Amino acid sequence: MINILFAARPASWARYEAPLRKALGAAGLEDFNLSTDIAPQDVDYIVLAPNGPVQDFAPYTRCRAVLNLWAGVENVVGNRSLTQPLARMVDEGMTQGMVEWVTGHVLRHHLGMDAHIHGQDGIWRNDAPPLAQNRPVTILGLGALGSACGRALAGLGFDVTGWSRSAKDIPGIRCLHGDAGLREALRTAQILVLLLPKTPETENLLDAQALAQMPQGAFIINPGRGPLIDDDALLHALDTGHIAHATLDVFRVEPLPPDHPYWAHPSVTVTPHVASETRKDTASEVIAENIRRSEAGEPLLHLVDRNLGY
Amino acid sequence: MINILFAARPASWARYEAPLRKALGAAGLEDFNLSTDIAPQDVDYIVLAPNGPVQDFAPYTRCRAVLNLWAGVENVVGNRSLTQPLARMVDEGMTQGMVEWVTGHVLRHHLGMDAHIHGQDGIWRNDAPPLAQNRPVTILGLGALGSACGRALAGLGFDVTGWSRSAKDIPGIRCLHGDAGLREALRTAQILVLLLPKTPETENLLDAQALAQMPQGAFIINPGRGPLIDDDALLHALDTGHIAHATLDVFRVEPLPPDHPYWAHPSVTVTPHVASETRKDTASEVIAENIRRSEAGEPLLHLVDRNLGY
Repeated sequence: MINILFAARPASWARYEAPLRKALGAAGLEDFNLSTDIAPQDVDYIVLAPNGPVQDFAPYTRCRAVLNLWAGVENVVGNRSLTQPLARMVDEGMTQGMVEWVTGHVLRHHLGMDAHIHGQDGIWRNDAPPLAQNRPVTILGLGALGSACGRALAGLGFDVTGWSRSAKDIPGIRCLHGDAGLREALRTAQILVLLLPKTPETENLLDAQALAQMPQGAFIINPGRGPLIDDDALLHALDTGHIAHATLDVFRVEPLPPDHPYWAHPSVTVTPHVASETRKDTASEVIAENIRRSEAGEPLLHLVDRNLGY
Repeated sequence: MINILFAARPASWARYEAPLRKALGAAGLEDFNLSTDIAPQDVDYIVLAPNGPVQDFAPYTRCRAVLNLWAGVENVVGNRSLTQPLARMVDEGMTQGMVEWVTGHVLRHHLGMDAHIHGQDGIWRNDAPPLAQNRPVTILGLGALGSACGRALAGLGFDVTGWSRSAKDIPGIRCLHGDAGLREALRTAQILVLLLPKTPETENLLDAQALAQMPQGAFIINPGRGPLIDDDALLHALDTGHIAHATLDVFRVEPLPPDHPYWAHPSVTVTPHVASETRKDTASEVIAENIRRSEAGEPLLHLVDRNLGY
């Protein structure tokens, strides 16, 4: 019997119980007990939402792995009671949703759609936009989400630059890394997409100095993590017009407070953390596959490096 | 000496002269006279904008081909004085621009972007949209533009149905044809893209009956030709909410008159014929290649079938 504790809020249990049971069965794991209520010392695996009931991992003495339901692990990776292996969620449904959202908003800014969506004033202004091949787009972060978005944008013809901490090589994307690479990635970015994890190194990465390195009139799209951006610096760059528009899906505090200046700013589009979400069916398959691997003595997928923080 | 008459408005000549000369040279045609002023009986080829100075083709007795600068030939194909071979423009730059515009507006409606672009009211509504694989998109017209858009949308994961007059087979697209196929293509279309040519058969194709066959709350995107739509029927379907929104790039009269109800309708986005335009460099290469082919006795590209009208 494998005891699998589902440690998330009750609404998640209602969504996940059936797809998880199905995925565990499909992975060949017939003899399991999946429940929200198992004595800590009996738990073999924890399926975890970081905002859920388990915050102290010390009593889970025989737990063989903690399987995160979310892509982001910043709220759990620093937990000192967590000594078990921790796996991130890399869900193809979430990746696909992110590709759709990022591609849509890059095309929106590329095509200048907002002028048409807002401005039906009866004046015929028929200037066609440039082609995507003449539109440099930079993606900061080349993990599962960033590289998938980069490939989709390159496939549509965009001139895509990607930047990551360590060197990468992705066909169709000009891959840069390191400090000098970051300066070059920012310098050319007419549209900048933020898909970095939140770590001490990436917090406020887009500060006043980084914003000043971007070209006049650039667009910023942040579906990554709120703290990547120095909010005051961004608001200042929007007010001066140095940055033309910011489309923000994630924030330091969520829900974004009703009186936050982002809501009312004419050069900001707030989307309420909808760029992507974990999809219950595909995410359940990832969880089940990792339990199967653990039981078979195979290495876990998407293991978190505690030093890097993701 | 090959005499090539450039028959378009003066602004086009200013844009096209240099790229056309370059493309003709690159095609190996050194001994040519490209001009806006050649005696009709001496003209070998006409590069034509249908709104330009040449409307009577009878005096062009030795003209071997008329090479249209535009994708649409509806304003010239019925000209009885035109007995010379007529080629449409199929320009990869135009196709690429159309793919970007169509993909952008399909993603815009798929993701429900307008609510975020219009509605920054401080209320956090974080319902993520479905994935593209669960969004049926229908494209009417599977010519160069329609099939390229269909491939791009299928590449992003959309559930794409295409419809054309005659049977086609395009990988990744469910291809339908004929009257029964049209009913099925409309019945499933949560997002409908119109990329048919304007012919007597396609005029008012999207009339009250066709609109009624579409699902409740569907979106319509028309970058094809204005007369494909019965405007009164569309306005009625928008007023009742049967059609959620129409994004229209082309109109029966252009520029769209300032008092036309489309401008002010809250469920209509007017884009002023910017979905795509002929790009001077790539279009010049198509013109030059057709002149090279004609001189070499090879068949012309993109010849218009006078009976079909495109």
